[in-house]
Amino acid sequence: MAESTVKVLGTQASPFANRVLIALSVKSVDYEFIQEDMSNKSELLLKSNPVHKKIPVLIHGDKPISESLVIVQYIDETWTNAPSILPSDPHDRAVARFWAAYVDDKWLPLMSDLGKAQGEEAKAEVQEKLQHALVPLEEAFVKCSKEKAFFGGDNIGYIDIALGCILGWIKAIKIMLGVEIFDVTKTPGLVKWADRFLADKDVKDVILEPEKLVEILKLHLAKREAANAN
Amino acid sequence: MAESTVKVLGTQASPFANRVLIALSVKSVDYEFIQEDMSNKSELLLKSNPVHKKIPVLIHGDKPISESLVIVQYIDETWTNAPSILPSDPHDRAVARFWAAYVDDKWLPLMSDLGKAQGEEAKAEVQEKLQHALVPLEEAFVKCSKEKAFFGGDNIGYIDIALGCILGWIKAIKIMLGVEIFDVTKTPGLVKWADRFLADKDVKDVILEPEKLVEILKLHLAKREAANAN
Repeated sequence: MAESTVKVLGTQASPFANRVLIALSVKSVDYEFIQEDMSNKSELLLKSNPVHKKIPVLIHGDKPISESLVIVQYIDETWTNAPSILPSDPHDRAVARFWAAYVDDKWLPLMSDLGKAQGEEAKAEVQEKLQHALVPLEEAFVKCSKEKAFFGGDNIGYIDIALGCILGWIKAIKIMLGVEIFDVTKTPGLVKWADRFLADKDVKDVILEPEKLVEILKLHLAKREAANAN
Repeated sequence: MAESTVKVLGTQASPFANRVLIALSVKSVDYEFIQEDMSNKSELLLKSNPVHKKIPVLIHGDKPISESLVIVQYIDETWTNAPSILPSDPHDRAVARFWAAYVDDKWLPLMSDLGKAQGEEAKAEVQEKLQHALVPLEEAFVKCSKEKAFFGGDNIGYIDIALGCILGWIKAIKIMLGVEIFDVTKTPGLVKWADRFLADKDVKDVILEPEKLVEILKLHLAKREAANAN
């Protein structure tokens, strides 16, 4: 089963699709990447994820799997002869799942709020919240990494992938809005971790350069404006 | 480690705490249940779940774990000599995690909307949405159960616990609001499944009777009204 073909439906700019590609890279799994146009979703996407109609989808053989963290766990449990993404100890696994849920349920929604914030004051308020919400993750990093490079120790693991997928956008936001979210005075450990994560061999070819992300976002906003004007 | 003491911080009426108790019952694990007063949270709760300050928390030995679905997976991975809660096949596990996430991210938020809905029309609208959002779960039930009693097959599993924990409240809502959510014409399989789940040996002593839940809710609303009047 592990030898069946692997396809990923996603977009290069999607942090959630990036989670899947990073996990596959950690496991040295070859895959075909199918770039989706989210304004004109493919039949394959609609058929593979009929409930949410969202990317990413992993198709392994003929079996589709959706939801990025579910996919990452599937990858970890399927290609077991490569480095583990989740820790082996059940309590450490629970800790990893707890923080990944924290990223998705508490931290990433604030990133959306930043996109919607109008005016400098509103933006500064969300920036403050985002920085504040990173503090528990900084503490978690100290505990989980045990003075090693990543949440996962010597290698990137589940929390690294869950949080790290957004780092390209963090840099793009700095370019576009001048907003610094990973602040060296508030979360110094995470600032260094972010640099290490983006330079990691399994990450650097997956996450787009911030300039490219800025370009993609500008194009998207221009398209939306044109559509609204019609 | 599996032999260390087990404590659960929760309330009897909480569906999320019920998930944990049902999982422990499936695994025949003895535990001490510590009833929390959520209007006056214990030091133990604040110390054990400093990030969310929420129930349930499982404390195994001296290690606390939070987030109900994280706890259920921890229980499954720690007490491995008892019936499995998640399926053994990685794809089936991914499917189980997908639907559990659907319950938490899509379906349960509609239950909160029902509580907030003012007036008959608004209530009917949310009722319709809740029934509609059960349809994919009915289809999932057909696929996962393979004509057996539960999503998990012959025994209750991960999706059963994720969705089933709310069934006491579904009955309580029918008594209080006259709103039927599990409709026999729309999701007949789930209606029968719900009866089987509530009668299951690992569930029946955990989920409170609907009349008791109504009583608890009325008391809660009266307290809130009194607090608002002051």
